[in-house]
Parts: sequence; C-alpha cells; structure tokens
Amino acid sequence: MHDLIIIGSGPAGISAALTAHTRSLDFLWFGDGDLSVKIEKAERIRNYPGLPDVTGQEMKQSFQEQIEGLGLALLPERINAIYPMGAHYAVSAGQEVYEAKAILLATGVETSKAIPGEAELLGKGVSYCATCDGFLYRQKRIAVVCTSPKLEPEIEFLAGIAAHVTIIAAYKGCGVEKENTEVILGYPSEIRGAGRVASLVCQGREIPVEGVFVLRDSISPAILLKGLQMEGNHIKVDRMQRTSLEGCFAAGDCTGRPYQYAKAVGEGNVALHSAIEYLSSRLEP
Amino acid sequence: MHDLIIIGSGPAGISAALTAHTRSLDFLWFGDGDLSVKIEKAERIRNYPGLPDVTGQEMKQSFQEQIEGLGLALLPERINAIYPMGAHYAVSAGQEVYEAKAILLATGVETSKAIPGEAELLGKGVSYCATCDGFLYRQKRIAVVCTSPKLEPEIEFLAGIAAHVTIIAAYKGCGVEKENTEVILGYPSEIRGAGRVASLVCQGREIPVEGVFVLRDSISPAILLKGLQMEGNHIKVDRMQRTSLEGCFAAGDCTGRPYQYAKAVGEGNVALHSAIEYLSSRLEP
Repeated sequence: MHDLIIIGSGPAGISAALTAHTRSLDFLWFGDGDLSVKIEKAERIRNYPGLPDVTGQEMKQSFQEQIEGLGLALLPERINAIYPMGAHYAVSAGQEVYEAKAILLATGVETSKAIPGEAELLGKGVSYCATCDGFLYRQKRIAVVCTSPKLEPEIEFLAGIAAHVTIIAAYKGCGVEKENTEVILGYPSEIRGAGRVASLVCQGREIPVEGVFVLRDSISPAILLKGLQMEGNHIKVDRMQRTSLEGCFAAGDCTGRPYQYAKAVGEGNVALHSAIEYLSSRLEP
Repeated sequence: MHDLIIIGSGPAGISAALTAHTRSLDFLWFGDGDLSVKIEKAERIRNYPGLPDVTGQEMKQSFQEQIEGLGLALLPERINAIYPMGAHYAVSAGQEVYEAKAILLATGVETSKAIPGEAELLGKGVSYCATCDGFLYRQKRIAVVCTSPKLEPEIEFLAGIAAHVTIIAAYKGCGVEKENTEVILGYPSEIRGAGRVASLVCQGREIPVEGVFVLRDSISPAILLKGLQMEGNHIKVDRMQRTSLEGCFAAGDCTGRPYQYAKAVGEGNVALHSAIEYLSSRLEP
C-alpha cells in the first residue's frame, strides 16, 4: 500500500511530484513521458516566474530535466478507473491494480466534447479501455474514436481482435492501416442504440457497430472516479484542493480556470500538502 | 487613475506583475528592489518547477533578471495605508497618494509578533509611519521598534526630529549611531499607557516615551486596509483570491499556508485574472 498516487504529468502533477519527492512520500506517479501535450504545443509563455519568455518546448525540457535529475519515475500506463475502497483507493492502470491511501488528480481538462449518447451507453457498448474490454469484441465490428496519435497502439491492439474497425480520427494522418481498418477524419455526432450500442454517426453517415471505443488523452474525472462531485466540467475543490471524497485531492486545469501554468503549479503544491496533512491525520489514534 | 496597484514583490507579487504586463494592464507595482528577504535567505528550494534545486539567491536572481528583461518598474515606497473610496482605492505610499480601480495584496506574512498594547494604542502614540507622524514628536522622547536594517533610514529621519530615540532592534548590528539615539537588542514585551502611550517595556526595563514607531518589513493587511476580513493572521479569500472587499484581491503567504513559492506564484496569477475579470465587469453598462 503506497501513501499516494498522483495522476497526471502536466504542471500540477509535476509540482505535486516534486514536493512529494522532497517530502519523501512513498508515491506512484502516472503520466505521459512527454509530460503534457498542451505545454509542448504552447507557442510562448511570458508570465511564468523563473522561466522568462520560453517556448512550450523549452518549458517542457526544463521540467523534464528537473524530473530526470531527481530520478523520478513516471509510469506511462493509462488509468482505466479509480475505486474508493473505504480507507484507501484502488487504481486500475494498464493491466495492473495499484493501491494507495490517498489520490491526487491532476488530469487536465479534456478539450474534445462528449459525444451525444456516449454517457448513456457507457458500459453498454461504449468503452474507454481497449485493454479491459477489447476481448468482448472478438470478431465483431467496432468503431474507435481517437483524439491523439499517441493512442494508436490501442487501435492496433483492437484491430487484432475485432473483425473490422472504423477509426474516427480527430486529427490528420492517422497511422493505422490494416486490412480490417478504415479511417474517417472527423468527430462523431452521435452514438446510437436502444439500451446497447447499435451504430455511430459521423459526417452524416451512420455506421453499424457493436462497440465504440472512445480513446482520449484523458478521461473525465467523474467517469474515472464515480461519486466525485463536479462543477460543470471541473472537479469541485476547496481552497486546500480537497475534493468531495476524503483522501482525494485535485489540482490544475481539472479544477477550473484560469488555465495557467502558474495556477496549476501552485495548486499541485497545495494539494500535495493537503495530502500530507490527511496522511498524518490517519496515523493518529 | 490606474487599473491596478500590486503591493508586494515576493513570488505572488512577481507572478501577478508578470501576468499584468502580459495582459497590458495599466498598473503600478510597489515592493522591495531586493524582491523578498525570505527568498534571499532560503537555503535551497527543491520543489519549484522550472528552477531545479536552486539556492534562494539563485531564485531571486532568476526572478530579478526576468523582471528587468521586461522593463518592469518596482516602486520602492513603503505603503502607509490603503483607503477604499467607493468605486476605487487610494494608496498612501511614501509621501504620495496613488489611485487605482483595483488592488492586489501580496504582502507576505509578518513573522514578528504584535506587541501587547500595540493595537490598543495605535493612533494614540503608536505609529507605523515615520513620514506621516514623525513631526508630531518634535523634541519629544520616542522609541522605534525596528525588525530590519533596511528600515534604518526611517530611524535616522526620526532621530532628526525627536529629542531622544530608543531603538529596539530585533537584529544584531543596528547601524544608527547618533548623539540622541540608544540601541537595545531585543523585542518589546509591552507598550503601556492609559489612553495614550506612556512607556515601553523591553528586557524587563520600562522606558518612558511619548511615542512608539513600529517599523516592520510589512504591516498587517488589516491595519493597512481597514475593513478587510481576516481569518486569524491571514486575509480571507475565496478560490478566485477575492477578499471581502470588492476590487481587492490577495495572493501568497498573506492568504495562508502552505508558505510555498509555488503556491504564491499560482495565487498571484489567479488573483490577477480575477482583477481583470473585475475590471472588465466595471466596463459593462
């Protein structure tokens, strides 16, 4: 049982991980080896104290060198779900389950919109996890909605199981080309089905499928962790970055605007300190 | 009339000023040319994203270069008081008065304790402002409580007016040596007087004086700006760094723990964004 699991490798997650390391916590850190697509793509950042007028690439490199200098391990497994277990949390990541006394969510905000029908048909043909649910679709026709080239290995995996995969790629230049795959550039307007997925609509075309995998850079926190109170698109937190669930803290863009590096870095630090306070309060009789 | 006055040059004030500059606000920024005594004295900072394992001196230098690179002017005048004027604020600084539509307080926390009797006798012989009140003590015996060598010019100024000055220096090596000054190393245990200052007690010795000037690096925000709601020693703020007074925002250590650079930098950024939102809401009919 670890003390803490930090999820997310943007500025909030980095700030939390650096402080967790400084405070010698026993923690696991999940995220992208490339840290953050948003940082990487930022043209120029002029208002972050300590890094004057940097490009997103330069900021990323600075953060990366700092993390590597401390020997911090960033686990690349995608998080499938988080389960509150009473006095601790279980995190399903990749094909493993990890346990910790506290959770720190720094998952960012998902910029792609929810698809009409997606929430209603989740678990009824809609899935976010190729590893978990892929085998349910052996020799069936499925669709995969993909928002990032980084997730293409998951499509390859699904193409090895399913009879046919319609790939709806939200970006140009999807690299998956197999005998049983077809790529449509765009984003679905609807997932249809009465109690179970029957079809997916994209570019005015209705495609009959038995399953739809929606692969995004991040999963909505409310879906990742059932029972987490939201305010619109954001996780509800107080000034100490505490969420509605005891032992669960959140920081960065996932808690609301302004979407700023400085704000995320500050909240990651505060959330980590609140986690420490929570962990030490548990030690008391 | 300026848009905004930022008070404080620690990490919160710096973050706010960088963002105010990026957003092309018409703002004034008051603080110490040396930025922050606390940063300067920090031995080593291991958890600030972007500046790996730096000394306080190195962090200060990095911030200073960034501020100079942008040509940001830091006004060194000490703030005497802030007055809410209905739709704007008036700031008495040095011997001038400045006006702005909004105020951002990033004043840090005062580490020296309030002296028993100080609050009760404020304005009745206790003063925080040599410039404002010095002339009231012409040819009188006064005491000056001083917590930082940077404030010694104020003592010199008072020694030129008063008959005799007992300097209570909270640090070794006070550099003021005049015919009418005497230095005691320590911190007062009490200021006494029935309705008006009569004496000051230090190291068990009671010194009769007609006035006591208390010179600290910063003045308590509640004294600086009457009516500002506090929570203990800290300014009460919400998640958007709004204080109890409309148009007044606060960030950094003055709003509470953890006293961390990352937290201060984040809050300075958020407070500035809230100020922008406030300023633009005023423009609407």
